[in-house]
Amino acid sequence: MLPVDLPGTVRDALLAPLVDHHCHGVRRDDLSRGQFELLMGAGAAPAPPGTTHFDTPVGTAVRRWCAPVLDLDPHAPPAVYLARRDELGATEVNRRLLGAAGVVAFLVDTAADDIDMLTATEMGRHGGAAADELVRVERVEQDVAVTAQIAVDYLDGLGEELTLRAARAVGLKTVIAALYGLDFDPARPARGAVIAAANRRLDDPKGAVTDPVLLRHLLWCAIDVARERGLPVQFHTGFGGRSPAEPHRADPARLGAFVQQVQPLGVPVVLLHSYPFHRQAAHLAGALPHVYADVGLAFPHTAAGARVMDELLELAPYHKLLFSSGCHGLAESGYLGALRYRRALAAALGSRLADGEWSPADAARVAHMIGSANARRVYRL
Amino acid sequence: MLPVDLPGTVRDALLAPLVDHHCHGVRRDDLSRGQFELLMGAGAAPAPPGTTHFDTPVGTAVRRWCAPVLDLDPHAPPAVYLARRDELGATEVNRRLLGAAGVVAFLVDTAADDIDMLTATEMGRHGGAAADELVRVERVEQDVAVTAQIAVDYLDGLGEELTLRAARAVGLKTVIAALYGLDFDPARPARGAVIAAANRRLDDPKGAVTDPVLLRHLLWCAIDVARERGLPVQFHTGFGGRSPAEPHRADPARLGAFVQQVQPLGVPVVLLHSYPFHRQAAHLAGALPHVYADVGLAFPHTAAGARVMDELLELAPYHKLLFSSGCHGLAESGYLGALRYRRALAAALGSRLADGEWSPADAARVAHMIGSANARRVYRL
Amino acid sequence: MLPVDLPGTVRDALLAPLVDHHCHGVRRDDLSRGQFELLMGAGAAPAPPGTTHFDTPVGTAVRRWCAPVLDLDPHAPPAVYLARRDELGATEVNRRLLGAAGVVAFLVDTAADDIDMLTATEMGRHGGAAADELVRVERVEQDVAVTAQIAVDYLDGLGEELTLRAARAVGLKTVIAALYGLDFDPARPARGAVIAAANRRLDDPKGAVTDPVLLRHLLWCAIDVARERGLPVQFHTGFGGRSPAEPHRADPARLGAFVQQVQPLGVPVVLLHSYPFHRQAAHLAGALPHVYADVGLAFPHTAAGARVMDELLELAPYHKLLFSSGCHGLAESGYLGALRYRRALAAALGSRLADGEWSPADAARVAHMIGSANARRVYRL
Repeated sequence: MLPVDLPGTVRDALLAPLVDHHCHGVRRDDLSRGQFELLMGAGAAPAPPGTTHFDTPVGTAVRRWCAPVLDLDPHAPPAVYLARRDELGATEVNRRLLGAAGVVAFLVDTAADDIDMLTATEMGRHGGAAADELVRVERVEQDVAVTAQIAVDYLDGLGEELTLRAARAVGLKTVIAALYGLDFDPARPARGAVIAAANRRLDDPKGAVTDPVLLRHLLWCAIDVARERGLPVQFHTGFGGRSPAEPHRADPARLGAFVQQVQPLGVPVVLLHSYPFHRQAAHLAGALPHVYADVGLAFPHTAAGARVMDELLELAPYHKLLFSSGCHGLAESGYLGALRYRRALAAALGSRLADGEWSPADAARVAHMIGSANARRVYRL
Repeated sequence: MLPVDLPGTVRDALLAPLVDHHCHGVRRDDLSRGQFELLMGAGAAPAPPGTTHFDTPVGTAVRRWCAPVLDLDPHAPPAVYLARRDELGATEVNRRLLGAAGVVAFLVDTAADDIDMLTATEMGRHGGAAADELVRVERVEQDVAVTAQIAVDYLDGLGEELTLRAARAVGLKTVIAALYGLDFDPARPARGAVIAAANRRLDDPKGAVTDPVLLRHLLWCAIDVARERGLPVQFHTGFGGRSPAEPHRADPARLGAFVQQVQPLGVPVVLLHSYPFHRQAAHLAGALPHVYADVGLAFPHTAAGARVMDELLELAPYHKLLFSSGCHGLAESGYLGALRYRRALAAALGSRLADGEWSPADAARVAHMIGSANARRVYRL
Repeated sequence: MLPVDLPGTVRDALLAPLVDHHCHGVRRDDLSRGQFELLMGAGAAPAPPGTTHFDTPVGTAVRRWCAPVLDLDPHAPPAVYLARRDELGATEVNRRLLGAAGVVAFLVDTAADDIDMLTATEMGRHGGAAADELVRVERVEQDVAVTAQIAVDYLDGLGEELTLRAARAVGLKTVIAALYGLDFDPARPARGAVIAAANRRLDDPKGAVTDPVLLRHLLWCAIDVARERGLPVQFHTGFGGRSPAEPHRADPARLGAFVQQVQPLGVPVVLLHSYPFHRQAAHLAGALPHVYADVGLAFPHTAAGARVMDELLELAPYHKLLFSSGCHGLAESGYLGALRYRRALAAALGSRLADGEWSPADAARVAHMIGSANARRVYRL
């Protein structure tokens, strides 16, 4: 499973159970080929006629690494893979793949609100792990928007609902990168502007909020709640299924002024994904004491592992890096996220050990920090 | 020629004839050292006093790889190389280098309008290949601007001339990145604004158009023509001889909103070059069904091959990558473009095979897709 | 010391004395652990509770490479390293580490104005090297601002003081990237706007100037002085201790329009650091005859060496690359900057020689150019 020979202590540290500090639920039902390809594809669209999402780095990885977990040979053809998946049934497939990920605790963003997705508790049960929840703040807003009648109820409702849900969660999460971009005005918006925006929102409460004033208001409410409860706030950044129309606006560097405003409040900020801007995330994590960077290598970046890991280890403090699978929809993404993380870190540590740059003791210690210890500290698990 | 040992089927697929989906003509005449250096240099300027453009990654590659095609030892000194070039004469040099590229079809941007450059037909003849034309839309505008008298003639002329030239071409191409930047307003400009801009343009019809309103109007005209005729539209992106004054504005991520507006029209969008923003191009190609990314490794990026290829294969669907040489001015760039592509892909596939990540059958299949099959499908060759 | 076997001529060229074209002074006094960690850390803040700045790529490098210079085993624990540092005393530590850097001339930015920092002359004496000064233009402004009474004195004073200090310096340097960003209006500001800004500045002359009008005025004054005296102007770019609040604004690509305005004046522009935007710096250095790119690998980027070097050598002309340590505060950064540079260039040249891409003669020649010859030419040493 690991691509290089390593001293026993380093190998053990790499293979030890992981805390997956950011994932979503996976589908509980059997999937058609079309459904499977859509979930495997990076975007929202089916592959163009005559092509398949299996002809992608993700598709190759599924055939190479997940096939053996389902008792198939590596590189099984797509049709064979999907037939075996059907044969075993979704429950068994999920149990095998999530179990093989070697995760001791899942922190789950359950915002999808889709009865076909496993809940946090179910993710834990399938994966033989503990499970905790992350509150997606824009999901809370959506729920409040459809029930509130007037702006004052809406605004009070946001704070109350955030507080309520945060009480049983280990962190909050925002997808403002996807809904607007990370180049928002970092200041807390003025009360008058928020009320005007709230009135506009209540006229059209369907779908996710995209008004930048409301998004900023919501974010600052989340920061307040996080401060009160001692929780970190996760920011989706970089490319991925939820990158904005103009993907350069998901560069975490654009959060610089905002995170500096948050610094005195002591709220930890966790930059998720960040690829291909991971050096920017690593820089912020090195420059600011409350900023953390994620090592998230699931779909669609699963093939980018070794280089991304190496580039993060060029710059980021070791106590500021956290593993996540970014698992979403398919249990394959949870398994591959963990596998790629371990293989990439093994390669990075292996080359440092071979060059004499690192000692084995340091390598084992850092593998333990990134794999679980940092997450336990930041999320107070 | 290939840097690694590969299974026979993979080797054969890499060495099979390529479709070069984007190149320009090369000079037909014998060149002075000054002319050669200028064409070899990335910018428009001669090398500073006491230095030479041969002391660049491109210069090193010419001496290493092109010298043997002219019967010289690798690493021949610049003076020896240029003397041998003179001795053989431009026609023989072009025939040898373009022929050695192993290309079955050239798609040629002939906008340069320079009688010293080979035409598309001549490129094909020298390289032992078929040849087709790409219509550079800003070249069409320039031709119309110098002949039209009034705005209405100018605007009608744009549409007519684009339609006429597209009728015998396999694609359209825009260099709006160089003339303005890719951060233009993605909306179709209003008629009134276009007429006002057309009047300004007719007062000063010399040189390439730089007015963003006219550039956008022209681009939308090109999209309309491309839709009618089922042609793709190529966008120059990234660094290169024609990057804008502020090179970050050539990041293809900035095209995100525009390409999403084009999506319902079904016009394929091809992102040329894109280095060093190739991960951004790969992301768009993965997220949107009509977007393609180019693997173009000619001057001045010829030395960047292996890493760029590896980074593209981290993220892009294999059916979305197209080979080009980006050949321009010197036949050396056509040969090196093809050579670097084959060496870079060989290295990327070789390491995936050695790690067991890919099967040989997949490696051979993907080499065939990127080298020619994808281009045949997209350009309907 | 070098990570690969190389032909003797290449090895000799790599180990030859370097011109360090950009560094700062190091502390002359014995340091507490807190002081040492702060100087070692990338940001201004202490490491969060329970963590240490030794758990960073810089910390690992200090323990691995500097420990043996102080007679310790590689990977010495932090406490052992610091105890040995105290035992030897700062003077001996500085003498050993700066001497081991193998530098023949230091060009020193002495703006820190801190009596605990070695002066340029002292840096030279400790390192067994010559030493020259770089004038930080925003430091000059600060000195003028606190003494001038009225705007006209302030503005005259800027020009006089810049001219005076430039007379005994080998270059000028600006940190406008940190104080504002590189996306400033490239035009020379209008006289009226400058006077208004000067009046505002004199009302609050403490601290560094941040008004973009004054920063631009100052920069253009520096360009004028540099032109008169034939000096280059260094721009801090990229990440580092002094990156702006929004780090993407330190991308040197954003200087594109400005450097093109400077081009006719013949003033060399040197882009310092630039990581992780080094490909952008390399592009500008290739496209414009007066632009140079720095190979600066000190804190906090010391672990990024090999890849950064490789990416620079993909694109930049060899006569446009200059070595610097970026040394700052700790003599460790001067030693590691030189060591990392030599190891990274050795690895890059070694792989090019192994692949037959370069000849040994070219490799030795380029090592000599980047290590010292280019700096001697640009700074007229």
